[in-house]
Amino acid sequence: MKTVSVLGSTGSIGCSTVDLLLQAPERFRVVALVGGRNVTKLAEQARALDAEYAVIADETLVGELETLLAGTSTRVSGGREAVIRAAGVPVDWTMAAITGAIGLEPTLAAVRNGGCVALANKEALVCAGDVMLREVHQAGATLLPVDSEHNAIFQSMADRQVDQVEKIVLTASGGPFRRASIEEMEKAPLEAALKHPTWSMGAKITIDSATMFNKGLELIEAARLFDMTEDRIGVIVHPQSVVHSMVQYTDGSIIAQLGSADMRIPIAHTLAWPKRMATNSPRLDLAAMSRLDFEEPDEERFPALRLARESLRAGGAASAILSGANEIAVEAFLNRKIGFRDIARVVEDVMQSLGNQKADTLEQVLRWDEEARRLARATITARAA
Amino acid sequence: MKTVSVLGSTGSIGCSTVDLLLQAPERFRVVALVGGRNVTKLAEQARALDAEYAVIADETLVGELETLLAGTSTRVSGGREAVIRAAGVPVDWTMAAITGAIGLEPTLAAVRNGGCVALANKEALVCAGDVMLREVHQAGATLLPVDSEHNAIFQSMADRQVDQVEKIVLTASGGPFRRASIEEMEKAPLEAALKHPTWSMGAKITIDSATMFNKGLELIEAARLFDMTEDRIGVIVHPQSVVHSMVQYTDGSIIAQLGSADMRIPIAHTLAWPKRMATNSPRLDLAAMSRLDFEEPDEERFPALRLARESLRAGGAASAILSGANEIAVEAFLNRKIGFRDIARVVEDVMQSLGNQKADTLEQVLRWDEEARRLARATITARAA
Repeated sequence: MKTVSVLGSTGSIGCSTVDLLLQAPERFRVVALVGGRNVTKLAEQARALDAEYAVIADETLVGELETLLAGTSTRVSGGREAVIRAAGVPVDWTMAAITGAIGLEPTLAAVRNGGCVALANKEALVCAGDVMLREVHQAGATLLPVDSEHNAIFQSMADRQVDQVEKIVLTASGGPFRRASIEEMEKAPLEAALKHPTWSMGAKITIDSATMFNKGLELIEAARLFDMTEDRIGVIVHPQSVVHSMVQYTDGSIIAQLGSADMRIPIAHTLAWPKRMATNSPRLDLAAMSRLDFEEPDEERFPALRLARESLRAGGAASAILSGANEIAVEAFLNRKIGFRDIARVVEDVMQSLGNQKADTLEQVLRWDEEARRLARATITARAA
Repeated sequence: MKTVSVLGSTGSIGCSTVDLLLQAPERFRVVALVGGRNVTKLAEQARALDAEYAVIADETLVGELETLLAGTSTRVSGGREAVIRAAGVPVDWTMAAITGAIGLEPTLAAVRNGGCVALANKEALVCAGDVMLREVHQAGATLLPVDSEHNAIFQSMADRQVDQVEKIVLTASGGPFRRASIEEMEKAPLEAALKHPTWSMGAKITIDSATMFNKGLELIEAARLFDMTEDRIGVIVHPQSVVHSMVQYTDGSIIAQLGSADMRIPIAHTLAWPKRMATNSPRLDLAAMSRLDFEEPDEERFPALRLARESLRAGGAASAILSGANEIAVEAFLNRKIGFRDIARVVEDVMQSLGNQKADTLEQVLRWDEEARRLARATITARAA
């Protein structure tokens, strides 16, 4: 039996993980479930999985959680310190799905256990890549990517011929502006940017998909995960999003992973790795889809890809700066303070102003993230004036 | 250094293999090269690769080969026995690319060495599957499929989670009659059937592609190679033929191998396995291709798929009978003695007449192959009368 913990169990990835654990109770023993504020859901999950610990990040909700779990053997706690402590309880497998900068410390605590860490927190590698990889190496931990693109690449490298990889190719849906002109994008209203063609997601990631900053962040993540320079990571637009990504080998073979749009598939892959487990996820029906399209991305219309590559070449804090500035710019676009194309302009301005900075410690990472956000806000205010 | 032999070195697959061996001379030492009748090519290959043995199947050409290789250290011989003897010289890797029933014995001789056998002879598994697999098992040999479809499946199973495979899916170009009506196929002239949309191949295999008997034979080969019942092997029509085949796992993931239409890619995969080697084969450019299409095959218009499945369910000699009858029927179609749709009718008639037969030895296999051919000829004559 594998021992598992789920950090961020009440979010979307967390709920899918819990769903899979419930499908194969004989294979897993649940140690810790960590939620943010949804005590009802957390209590329900803890009961269903007979979890050893249930931890709620919002300390004010501990009492409620205790009441909901009265009569069970689950031990209840709350608050930031309790979250990090729970993440640090040794297990075979941890789902690290607390998103944002707040997820960094719990993810690091899990990594330090030296087990398998299924990584669904983008910031861990985008912002704190060097720190995270150093800790992974020191602890002998194994990172298993959950993102459908990175999981596809991981699966496509199953024969571990990493030195024979020529390049990896991330697929991108192209978002709602795949065929829009620069002029149309310049004037695009918020509503148009929020219409994602294939996935239904939160507002931030939907805008990131429209600007392709999402793909830029994935490019950075891929470079860290698979130890590749940016020139060996291609991006191809594939609007149907069923080829989740590809690996091209030096012999000319391309290995790809395909599947339906169900995050339980990559999660199940990380959960059962190095074996596999059965899921009841819908199977892909290529004949019913009938066709798959592919096209080159346009780096002029989507400067996010270029900026992501620049940040990788610069190294240090550059990717953290890109990510922080982008978050603020997207927020401003969602609040109708700036136009769609201004998002990339703000990010580029901030990157240029802050220049190359070191990010050898988590403190440095968080400092430059904060600095990027501050400068992005100032840039946005200046633009509005 | 890997020791290698190439059986059928002057044919298309053989020449591609030699080309790859020349690309990486530091990795391979060539033991035997076996050709059919092309002494000039064989001598040229033996000189270029400094082969230990050069064997020509046509005994009358030994003298000529000796003259061409005078002054080299290559030992020359000729005739059927010499071919089988050369195939039996122990090496790490053998390319078994002598096609047809005549290739069975040399392939078996290579298998008995217990090394890796790259299999490009379809008959070995389609007709003599049970015999071949028994010998592979006894000798502890490893079969490495060369056919682009089977090689794709092998590559897509790189993580060896064979027990977690839900099904395998062979892609099929659909051939020139992909969109033809039954009436059009009934009256199709030879010229139309010979127009293959993507690959340039010999007449027999081009007609097999038009009837989809080629895919039927591959279905049988896949069942043998991957130990799958026919209900776990799907076929999907994919006219661009760049997805070479796919494996669907129980977690819902599909792994596929893609590549350009260059047989050196799968050959290189078998040659370097379990590692990979660099090739200068053209890389696949999906953006330039722009789209990939997929559709269900129509078993009414293409009865070959149904017949192949029936032969697998029947077992024993049924697949050898299908293959033998098909060869004669295709020959008759190429000689304009029967119509296009008659090919499958002849095969079905012969399969029904001969019924279930044992094929536990190579002799039994060859006997039923012969019997199927005889009956096919009789059926064709009766139809013409």
